[in-house]
Amino acid sequence: MQRVEAEIARLIQECEYGEVTRLFQQLSGGKHLRAKLILKIASEHEKAPLLAAIVELIHGASLLHDDVIDEAQTRRGLESVNASEGSKQAVMLGDVLYSKAFTELVSFDKDVAKTIAASVTALSKGEMIDVKLAETFNSDEQIYLDMLYLKTATLIEAAASAAAMLAGKDVQKYALYGRNLGLSFQIIDDILDITADAKTLGKPALNDFVEGKCTLPYIYLYNVLNENDKERLRSLHAKHLDEASMAWIQTQMKKHMSVEKSFELAQKLSNEAKEVMSDVPQLVAILDTMIKRSY
Amino acid sequence: MQRVEAEIARLIQECEYGEVTRLFQQLSGGKHLRAKLILKIASEHEKAPLLAAIVELIHGASLLHDDVIDEAQTRRGLESVNASEGSKQAVMLGDVLYSKAFTELVSFDKDVAKTIAASVTALSKGEMIDVKLAETFNSDEQIYLDMLYLKTATLIEAAASAAAMLAGKDVQKYALYGRNLGLSFQIIDDILDITADAKTLGKPALNDFVEGKCTLPYIYLYNVLNENDKERLRSLHAKHLDEASMAWIQTQMKKHMSVEKSFELAQKLSNEAKEVMSDVPQLVAILDTMIKRSY
Repeated sequence: MQRVEAEIARLIQECEYGEVTRLFQQLSGGKHLRAKLILKIASEHEKAPLLAAIVELIHGASLLHDDVIDEAQTRRGLESVNASEGSKQAVMLGDVLYSKAFTELVSFDKDVAKTIAASVTALSKGEMIDVKLAETFNSDEQIYLDMLYLKTATLIEAAASAAAMLAGKDVQKYALYGRNLGLSFQIIDDILDITADAKTLGKPALNDFVEGKCTLPYIYLYNVLNENDKERLRSLHAKHLDEASMAWIQTQMKKHMSVEKSFELAQKLSNEAKEVMSDVPQLVAILDTMIKRSY
Repeated sequence: MQRVEAEIARLIQECEYGEVTRLFQQLSGGKHLRAKLILKIASEHEKAPLLAAIVELIHGASLLHDDVIDEAQTRRGLESVNASEGSKQAVMLGDVLYSKAFTELVSFDKDVAKTIAASVTALSKGEMIDVKLAETFNSDEQIYLDMLYLKTATLIEAAASAAAMLAGKDVQKYALYGRNLGLSFQIIDDILDITADAKTLGKPALNDFVEGKCTLPYIYLYNVLNENDKERLRSLHAKHLDEASMAWIQTQMKKHMSVEKSFELAQKLSNEAKEVMSDVPQLVAILDTMIKRSY
């Protein structure tokens, strides 16, 4: 990872603007999941650290814009750039990072460059759909999963695929791994918003639903409720929740095993990914760690 | 231009999201200056319409993000996307357009792709600097011109350079043309904010200064005022201006020929560009039309 950090520092330096360097530091930290995947898959390739750095810049840019969209106040335990510097600076810093990443991508083979660039279109589209879906009560599982794929899984899928292209490995196999890792990661994240307390997660529980996001447990719950309770759940959507309403939702979810059903899907996706990657223990371990976050 | 329009329509279609198609229409119109330049410089090249379409998508994305930054209510005579759909949708639509453009750029030679991609880093950095400069009273001409170059001229310069690369023409010459066209275009725009009435321009006169932007005429004026008047001009910066203050600024500008001095620089830059392009009458004509906007 040191070589990735060095490449990231070089790319940021090349932007030749002190504000970019300063604000990017505010964004640093994080797990570098995408970079680690690329290093593991294409460990032999001399350009793997540069590809990993590019994908981290893209991920950083997408977080900056996400936080503007969601009006998030914190990111990775620090104040978000939009909170401390204003949305304007966050939007533009994101654009600087995106375009710097794309400029560097040009030095790769066309199939690698195209895979990464196209995933950014997908993730931006995913974010647009996410915002649109939150305007109404969505109870359609497939619509929700399609959005999750675009918003969270495509960049991980693209990172794994591009690294496999660099390393001359089976692209389909790594694409499936990346896609399923991304999807199950996000499903677990959605579960944690319901099961973790505010202190652990650093944000209030049921925050997604308050923001209008009907994640998988809400969709599963809704579809098994009787008409009256369906109506009640709908009436609570995208509103501040009092203690009683929160307790009601959580009781209903327990009763109908909504979180468990969501977890089952995450586990199924993770198992599929494990199966194709059974000969790469390090990549299997990433899945195991991710799944274990939830309980 | 029909082939460019067809390419733009195809790229938007390929995003496969009705919202993108719908919102992009709201952004259409405009002079397509960059596309026209590319078509004129690389008229023989089969990929010129695609390059032109890519640059128009990039320009569209930058306008979307600019309007979010400036909280603009209108764009090209229509309601801006941030005004009608919210800043969130405008940020994300911009990201979709940027990344779609970058994905398509990959099919070009590396020098062409790199030139266009790097100009987006420059223009985003220029926008960051523009926002920062507006926070204080900037009276330094060079700092202002450096920002203008980044914010407005680099994409035009890149479009002209990349087209020259496609056509096997003298890249330096076309780069100078694009750069000077962009700079003088923006200087004229800044002048119009002072000389045109609200009706012609569709926005209140002296709007730039109210928003904190010390454009060239203000910088020239400030540097020849006595200490008292310097203080007075500073005190009016980035505030709502009453009739008396507006009249005072305009009287001082007339007295000190601040607008004329700015116009002289625009004309000097335009003449340099004309000189290197003396054998291409169509490109000279673009400069003439642009300069004539101002009076």
